[in-house]
Amino acid sequence: MTHDIEELQAALRRFAEERDWGQFHSPKNLAVSLSIEAAEVLEHFQWLTEEQSRTLDDTSRQAVAHEIADVLLYLLQLSDRLDIDPIRAAREKLALNAERYPADKARGKSTKYTGL
Amino acid sequence: MTHDIEELQAALRRFAEERDWGQFHSPKNLAVSLSIEAAEVLEHFQWLTEEQSRTLDDTSRQAVAHEIADVLLYLLQLSDRLDIDPIRAAREKLALNAERYPADKARGKSTKYTGL
Amino acid sequence: MTHDIEELQAALRRFAEERDWGQFHSPKNLAVSLSIEAAEVLEHFQWLTEEQSRTLDDTSRQAVAHEIADVLLYLLQLSDRLDIDPIRAAREKLALNAERYPADKARGKSTKYTGL
Amino acid sequence: MTHDIEELQAALRRFAEERDWGQFHSPKNLAVSLSIEAAEVLEHFQWLTEEQSRTLDDTSRQAVAHEIADVLLYLLQLSDRLDIDPIRAAREKLALNAERYPADKARGKSTKYTGL
Repeated sequence: MTHDIEELQAALRRFAEERDWGQFHSPKNLAVSLSIEAAEVLEHFQWLTEEQSRTLDDTSRQAVAHEIADVLLYLLQLSDRLDIDPIRAAREKLALNAERYPADKARGKSTKYTGL
Repeated sequence: MTHDIEELQAALRRFAEERDWGQFHSPKNLAVSLSIEAAEVLEHFQWLTEEQSRTLDDTSRQAVAHEIADVLLYLLQLSDRLDIDPIRAAREKLALNAERYPADKARGKSTKYTGL
Repeated sequence: MTHDIEELQAALRRFAEERDWGQFHSPKNLAVSLSIEAAEVLEHFQWLTEEQSRTLDDTSRQAVAHEIADVLLYLLQLSDRLDIDPIRAAREKLALNAERYPADKARGKSTKYTGL
Repeated sequence: MTHDIEELQAALRRFAEERDWGQFHSPKNLAVSLSIEAAEVLEHFQWLTEEQSRTLDDTSRQAVAHEIADVLLYLLQLSDRLDIDPIRAAREKLALNAERYPADKARGKSTKYTGL
């Protein structure tokens, strides 16, 4: 795993230990939290058109960055608890997707594009 | 940003380009996808007790790893589109949380622990 | 509450009792399930434009109807467990929204339209 | 459909018309909103144990009632836009579930209980 990600995970472990929050951080609760934070990212796009979402102003972009951070922080904690290497899992999944959606067949079709 | 993450983002960009999927990958649609994939992580814990979630067997752990990968892949694509550095945003958010939840006051209390 | 909704709630109670599923149906687990099912509704719209979402074909509409049913079934079970009358709560919330978003000020503006 | 639900849907239609919000209320956006509101229900249970979730105090119960209302209001609007009768769909789904999970085989097993 990358140094940065291991470092963040170590910092998160310390953060939870110092607050005695390990008791709340079951994988189930972390998965619940991941979902809640993903919805908070989505909330910023709720009433925007796709076009508007491509041209966020700086304030919105900064707000979205904070929510993305929350998602990543829970993702790293969940991965850590389950002893999953998220970068490696992502690489494997991307390789799998390359097989499932051959470029020549999937070109320009969103309809086949499910399950990624 | 870390080398690994930049590498993954470059691979995802290539992946989308080769399939002409950029048209579907508006930040709004990527945020929708992030939320859907986070719910798929959660689905694995839906009927487990917290205790059971701490002791997943290898098959479940592998299945969760694939869903975590999907969340990360969309998170990286969304960040890339919005020109957000997710590692840096996560570091900043963690520093902010350290201020908001001082260890001595937050110890063992989940009730105050909202908004992380 | 309406007769139909009370009837559905009674049927759901019977359904869970016959399967001894009450043990799994804590309000927390029902709230988790509600979120998962809402994401499954969303999945049908993931790659559609807003325009396409306005003109679903019959197959898609039927599939969405099933997911909407799942959301409603969990909503009714959660309400039942917490002794909340969902129709009454909806009426109260709608009255509240009428105050928060006066027609003349909110007209055509999605930006102010948060929290509904 | 029940009188109460039709009445709520008519009120929601009027509410949106008076504010010229129909333009924002594509089925896609309503599905996004449904997911966001379901996550807000879930947020109230994020750090509770299942046991604690069974014994909410009145303040929490009232707060959850408001979020349940939001979910229902979006569910009704989405159904209305797609011309889906949510009560009828729920009845049909419940009948389907009775076939898929025969009481004698499903008793006490949460493991088979997916996809409801």
